[in-house]
Amino acid sequence: MANISKKVSWSGRGDDRGERTPLLNGAEDGKYNRHVLHFVFQSLDYDNSENQLFLEEERRMSHMGFRCLETRRWVICGLIGFLTGLIACLIDIAVEKLAGYKYSAVKQNIEKFTEFGGLSISLILWAVLNSAFVMVGAIAVAFFEPIAAGSGIPQIKCYLNGVKIPRVVRLKTLAIKVFGVICSVAGGLAVGKEGPMIHSGAVVAAGVSQGRSTSLKKDFKIFEYFRRDTEKRDFVSAGAAAGVSAAFGAPVGGVLFSLEEGASFWNQMLTWRIFFASMISTFTLNFFLSIYHGKPGELSSPGLINFGRFDSDVSSYIPFESFIFFSFHFPGGVLGALFNVINYWLTIFRIRYIHRPCLQVMEAMLVAAVTATISFAMIYFSNDCQPLGQDNTEEYSLQLFCADGEYNSMATAFFNTPERSVRSLFHNPPGSYNPLTLGVFTLAYFVLAVWTYGLTVSAGVFIPSLLIGAAWGRLFGILLSTITSSQSIWADPGKYALIGAAAQLVTHACHLCFVLLEHEAHVCGLYDVHIKLQSVPFLHWEAPPTSHWLTAREVMSSPVTCFNRVEKVGRIVDVLSNTSTNHNGFPVVAHTTENDEPGKICGLILRSQLIVLLKHKVFVERASSRLSHRKLQLKDFRDAYPRFPPIQSIHVSQDERECMMDLTEFMNPTPYTVPQETSLPRVFKLFRALGLRHLVVVDNENRVVGLVTRKDLARYHLGKDGLEELHLAQT
Amino acid sequence: MANISKKVSWSGRGDDRGERTPLLNGAEDGKYNRHVLHFVFQSLDYDNSENQLFLEEERRMSHMGFRCLETRRWVICGLIGFLTGLIACLIDIAVEKLAGYKYSAVKQNIEKFTEFGGLSISLILWAVLNSAFVMVGAIAVAFFEPIAAGSGIPQIKCYLNGVKIPRVVRLKTLAIKVFGVICSVAGGLAVGKEGPMIHSGAVVAAGVSQGRSTSLKKDFKIFEYFRRDTEKRDFVSAGAAAGVSAAFGAPVGGVLFSLEEGASFWNQMLTWRIFFASMISTFTLNFFLSIYHGKPGELSSPGLINFGRFDSDVSSYIPFESFIFFSFHFPGGVLGALFNVINYWLTIFRIRYIHRPCLQVMEAMLVAAVTATISFAMIYFSNDCQPLGQDNTEEYSLQLFCADGEYNSMATAFFNTPERSVRSLFHNPPGSYNPLTLGVFTLAYFVLAVWTYGLTVSAGVFIPSLLIGAAWGRLFGILLSTITSSQSIWADPGKYALIGAAAQLVTHACHLCFVLLEHEAHVCGLYDVHIKLQSVPFLHWEAPPTSHWLTAREVMSSPVTCFNRVEKVGRIVDVLSNTSTNHNGFPVVAHTTENDEPGKICGLILRSQLIVLLKHKVFVERASSRLSHRKLQLKDFRDAYPRFPPIQSIHVSQDERECMMDLTEFMNPTPYTVPQETSLPRVFKLFRALGLRHLVVVDNENRVVGLVTRKDLARYHLGKDGLEELHLAQT
Repeated sequence: MANISKKVSWSGRGDDRGERTPLLNGAEDGKYNRHVLHFVFQSLDYDNSENQLFLEEERRMSHMGFRCLETRRWVICGLIGFLTGLIACLIDIAVEKLAGYKYSAVKQNIEKFTEFGGLSISLILWAVLNSAFVMVGAIAVAFFEPIAAGSGIPQIKCYLNGVKIPRVVRLKTLAIKVFGVICSVAGGLAVGKEGPMIHSGAVVAAGVSQGRSTSLKKDFKIFEYFRRDTEKRDFVSAGAAAGVSAAFGAPVGGVLFSLEEGASFWNQMLTWRIFFASMISTFTLNFFLSIYHGKPGELSSPGLINFGRFDSDVSSYIPFESFIFFSFHFPGGVLGALFNVINYWLTIFRIRYIHRPCLQVMEAMLVAAVTATISFAMIYFSNDCQPLGQDNTEEYSLQLFCADGEYNSMATAFFNTPERSVRSLFHNPPGSYNPLTLGVFTLAYFVLAVWTYGLTVSAGVFIPSLLIGAAWGRLFGILLSTITSSQSIWADPGKYALIGAAAQLVTHACHLCFVLLEHEAHVCGLYDVHIKLQSVPFLHWEAPPTSHWLTAREVMSSPVTCFNRVEKVGRIVDVLSNTSTNHNGFPVVAHTTENDEPGKICGLILRSQLIVLLKHKVFVERASSRLSHRKLQLKDFRDAYPRFPPIQSIHVSQDERECMMDLTEFMNPTPYTVPQETSLPRVFKLFRALGLRHLVVVDNENRVVGLVTRKDLARYHLGKDGLEELHLAQT
Repeated sequence: MANISKKVSWSGRGDDRGERTPLLNGAEDGKYNRHVLHFVFQSLDYDNSENQLFLEEERRMSHMGFRCLETRRWVICGLIGFLTGLIACLIDIAVEKLAGYKYSAVKQNIEKFTEFGGLSISLILWAVLNSAFVMVGAIAVAFFEPIAAGSGIPQIKCYLNGVKIPRVVRLKTLAIKVFGVICSVAGGLAVGKEGPMIHSGAVVAAGVSQGRSTSLKKDFKIFEYFRRDTEKRDFVSAGAAAGVSAAFGAPVGGVLFSLEEGASFWNQMLTWRIFFASMISTFTLNFFLSIYHGKPGELSSPGLINFGRFDSDVSSYIPFESFIFFSFHFPGGVLGALFNVINYWLTIFRIRYIHRPCLQVMEAMLVAAVTATISFAMIYFSNDCQPLGQDNTEEYSLQLFCADGEYNSMATAFFNTPERSVRSLFHNPPGSYNPLTLGVFTLAYFVLAVWTYGLTVSAGVFIPSLLIGAAWGRLFGILLSTITSSQSIWADPGKYALIGAAAQLVTHACHLCFVLLEHEAHVCGLYDVHIKLQSVPFLHWEAPPTSHWLTAREVMSSPVTCFNRVEKVGRIVDVLSNTSTNHNGFPVVAHTTENDEPGKICGLILRSQLIVLLKHKVFVERASSRLSHRKLQLKDFRDAYPRFPPIQSIHVSQDERECMMDLTEFMNPTPYTVPQETSLPRVFKLFRALGLRHLVVVDNENRVVGLVTRKDLARYHLGKDGLEELHLAQT
C-alpha cells in the first residue's frame, strides 16, 4: 500500500482569471520543476449539464428540429473545410512569393560576387534577409500572442483531451499564427508550414461553429445552440482534421488524427462530418492553387506538401529490401530519441533563462542568421558539382564555382525551402548527390532543427524531421549500392530517401495517410515532452496499470464546498470570491446540517452558471415580488459562453446578500457519482470515457464526501520507481 | 409526455441455454414481427467486475508483470494476423483451383459442341457443376452451422457492439465458413470471398487469445489472463481488422472498420496493436501467394481483391469530370436503395417460408443453376465479338460463334469469377465492351445479386455490388464519350468503371482504405436491415434525439431481484432456476428487509459468478468447518469462461440449501449507478461509453429501485411517427 513516492504540496487553487499565463510556450518566471502540475489549466466540460432548462428545450424540440440542427452541423463543417483550405492556400502562396524574392535576390548577389570575389557580402545579405523575416514573425508571436508559438499541435492535443487552454482558439491567435508561419518559413528556418495548419483549422472551427468572434466583438446570432463545450469540441475536432487534410492532402489522415486525440467522445455521424470537412478543405486548397498556378481544374496538389510521383512503385520491394527496410528503423529511432532528449534540455533551459519576449526574438534572429551562415559555408566549401540536366526542376540552382553547365548539389539541399529539398531528395536521379554532401547535410540540419523547435516563432516540426530522414535514407541507399556494387537492384536511391523519411517517422509508410499516422507516433513523442514540460494535466488513455490499489477516497479532494438547494446569495458570493479555494463545480445537497455533516447529493452546479444567475439577480425574493421578471433562459447562459465574467465584476449589494437563490432549476440534477471504494482505474475510465470535469464521490448514504477533477487523476504517473505523484502547484 | 406509440408486450425473460436459436440467418418458426426485440441475445460485459479477487491479483502484479502482459498482447495480435493471412491464402488458392477446373471443363465442352451443335449439353454441364459446388457448401452451412451463413459482417458488428451471439466465434463456425465460401464462389454464385474473411479473422482472434478451443476440447493453459469479455473483445476487434486487411490489402481500412464498430472501447495502444495485426495479415497473405505464384518475394497482391494498376492517374480529374463524378452518386444511391428494399422483402419471405434446412439447400442450388443459365443465355445471344489482343489476360476467353482471333466479350463478364470480372471492367482497353452488353449485364447481375444475398451459403456482398457499379459506370463512360464524341477526354472508360464502382458504394474513392469506408456506408445499410430483421438489441451511437423526456425510471426493469451480502443457498438456487425471470445480474444489497422495501446497494454479482460459487460449494459453513478448503481464485472463474454450466447441472442437496453464501469477496463492490431522474440519452451515453451490461438505478437513499439492461435501451427507436417502442419477446 505504500510504494508511492509522495511529492504532494497541496495548494488547492485553480483559476483562469485573465492573467497572462505561461501556457505551452515557455515564458515563465524562471522557475522550473518537473514534478508539478499547473493549476492554471481548466477543464472543458464534455458532459452536458442536463438541467431543467436544457431538458425543457430538448423536449420542446420536434423531430424536425433535430434534423435542422443536424443539417446546420453539416453546413458548419463545410464552412470550416472551405475556410481552412483558403488559409492553407494563402500560406502556400505567400511563402512561395516571399521565398522566391529572397532566393532571387541572394542568387543574383552570389552570381555577381562569384566572379569578383567578396562572397562575404552575399552571406551577410542572406543572413540579414533571413533575420529580418524571422524578426517580424517572432515579434508578432512573442509580444502579441505567445500561444501562437510552435506548431500548435500540442495545444490542440490538449484541447481535444479536454484541457481548456486560454486564448488557444481565438481569431487573434489565428492571425498571428498564419503571419508568423509565413515569416519563419520565408526566413529560412528549419521549419515546416504543416503543423500550424492544424492549429489554424481548429481556430476556424471554433469561430465558425460559435457564430461570433469575441476578438472582433461581432455576434452573428447564428448557431447559438452550439455554444457549449460539448458541441464546440466536436467542431474543433473537425477543424483540426481539415487542417491535417489541407497540410498533407490526406483526408483519411485528418480523420485518424482527430480519432487519435478525441476518440472517447466519438460517434459515427461525427466521423462522417469530420471526413466531409477534410474533403472540402483539401479540395478548396487544390482548386485555388490550381487557379493560382494558371491551370484551373488540374487538381494535382491536394496538400501543402507534395511528394511528387515515384516512377518505380515504392511499395514493391524485393524480399531482401524488406529486411533492409526494417533495419532502417534503428537509426531512425536513435536519431528521433536524440532529437527529443536534446530538445527536452533545451526547452528547460529556455523556460529558465529565455523568458523575456525581447530575448526570445533575439534568439530566433540568431538562429536565422546561423542557419544562413551554416548553409552558406556548406555550399561554399562543398565541391560537389553535378551536371545541369535538361529536366532539372531546381528553381534556384546555384552554379557558384562549378563549371558552366553544372550546379552545386549542396545548394539544392540548402538553398531552398525545406519542402522542395525533400522533393529533390526523393526524385533527383541517382548520382545527384555525393555521400559526403548528404552526411554533412544530415548532421548540420539535425543540429539546426533541434535548436529551432521551441523558438518563439510559429512553425512546424514535421518537414524538418522528414528532411533529416530523407537525407540519411538517401545516404544509406548510396552506400548500400556502393558496397553491393550492383547498380541494377539499388538503382533508385530516391526510394531509400522515402524509406528513410518514413523510418525517421518511426515506422514504414506505404501511403500518405499512413505517413501521417507515423508522424503522429514520432513527433508525438516530442509533443508529449513539451506537454509534460508545461505541466498540463493531460489525461492519457488509461490510468497507470499499477494504480489499482488507489481508490476514489485517496484520490479525491476533500472536504468539498457544497451549496444548499436554496442558498443565501451572500454565501455564494463569498465562496466564489474566495481565491484560495477557486473551485469551478459545486455539489448541491439536500440539507447541509450546520454541524459539518455532509448532505445528500441532489445536483451539481458550475461556477459559470452561478455567475450568470448572480448577474441576472435570479433571487427568490425578486421572483415573488416582481412577477413580470423575465424567466432566465438557456440563451442567457449561451450568450455568456465561453468567457463568463469574473465574480469581482458583479456587484451585489448588502441587501441582496441576504436574499436566497433557488438552484433547483439550473443545477444538473443527475451528476455522475462513484462510491469511495472505487479503484482509480475505474474512476479514470468513467472520467475519460464521458469527458467529465467533476465527478462526485459519495458514501453509501449518497452523502457528498469528495470531488474528483482532472488534476486529481492527471497527477499519478508511472515513473522509474513505480507510481509517482506530482505536485499540484499554483502558477 | 405521451407521443410514444407503446407496443410493449412485456415478458421479462432472457436466456441462452443452448437451444438452437434463430440468430442472424433466418431459420425461425415461420413467424415474423418487425416490432420485436429478441430476448435470446445476451450482452457481453465490457465492464470489469472489480471484485476483491481481481483487485488482489492486480495489486500483487508488479510493473514488470504488466509489461509482460502487454508483450503477450502484441504476440497474440501477431499470431492473429499470421493465421488470418494464411486462411485468406487458403481460400484464394482453393477458389482459383476449383474455378479453374470448372471453367476449363465447361470451356472444353463448349468448344466441342460449338462445332457440332448441341450447346444445351454444355449449359447443363455448367449448371450441374455450379449446383453441385453450391449444394455441398449449402449443406455444410444449413445442417452443421447456420451461423456461418452470409458474410458474417452483421454478426461481427453485433459482437463488437456488445451482443453475445451464440457460436459466432467458434472453431467449427470458422471451418464451415471457410469451406462454405470456397464452395459458393467456385459454384459461380454472385458473391465475393471478402466478407467471410472478416468473420474468419474474428474467430481466429477469439480462439488464439483464449489459448484454447472448446470445439477441440483442448486447453493450452496459456493466455489465461485474457479470459474475460473485456480482453476478448479487444482481440476480436484486431481479428476483424486483420480480416479486412487480408481481404482488401488495406491495413488502415481494417483499423477504421474496427474503430467504426467498437470505438467507444478504444485506446491508442489498442489501435497500434490492431494495426500491427492488420499489417502482419496482409503481409502473410502476400508472401504466401507470391510463393504459390512462383515469384517468391514479389509482394504485389496485398489483398484478396486486387484492382490492378491504372495507367492514368485516377485522382487527377479535369474539372468537368468532378461534376460528372458527383452525378454518379445519384444512380448509385438509387440502385443501392433498391437492392436493400428488394432484399428486405426477400429476407422476410425467407424467414417466413424457407426455414427448413433442406429447403434452404434447394433454394441455393436453384440460384446456382439459374445463374449458370442466365449467364449462358446472355453469352449465347450476345454477338459482341472483340479481337483477341496480344496482351489479353482473360484466362477463359470463349470464342463461341465469333470469328477466329476474336472472343465473346459477354463471356469475359459472365464466364469468370466476379473478382476477375471487376478487373476486366477496370482495365480492358476502350472498346472492349459494347453498351448493350454492359446494360444487359448490369440488369441481370443486379437481379442475381439481390436474390443471392441471404441464401444459406457462406458469401460476401462486397464484390457483387462493386461489380454492378463497375458495369454501369463503364456503360455511362461509353455513353458519355459517344455523346461528346471526343475520344481524347473520355479516353478511358475503365476510369468510369472505377468511379461507378465507388459511387455504387455511395461516395467517391481515392484509394483502397477509403473504398472500404464507403463499402461500409453502403453495404452497412444492407447489414443494418438484416440486423434489424433479426431483432437483435443493437445499440446505436446515441439515443434517439427525441427521447429526452424519458427517464431511467420509465426505462428500467422493476422490481429487481436482489441478494443479500450473505444469502441463503436455497434462495440463490431458486432464483437462478426460475425460468420466468432469467436474469444475469443481481444487485447485492446491505439488508433486504422482509417487508419488500428495497435495500441499499453494496454490489453487483453475475449469474456466471454465482454458478461458479455454487459449483465449488463456497458456503460459509464449509469454510469454517473445513479449514483446509482451497480458497476460490480468479482462475476458477477463468476456467469456466465463457460457457458457464447451466444451473440445472449443479446438484445442491437439501442440507446444502440451508447453508449461507458470503458474496462480499466475489461481487463487484462499485457498480455504476444512476438516479431515477436521469434522462434516457444520459443513461444511454453512460451505458454505451463504458460498454455496460447492467446499470443499477437507485433512489436518493442509494436503495435499488431498478436495473437497466441492453434491451431496455435498444427497444426505443425513431419510427415514422416519432419515438417507437419495440416489443420484448421471448423466442
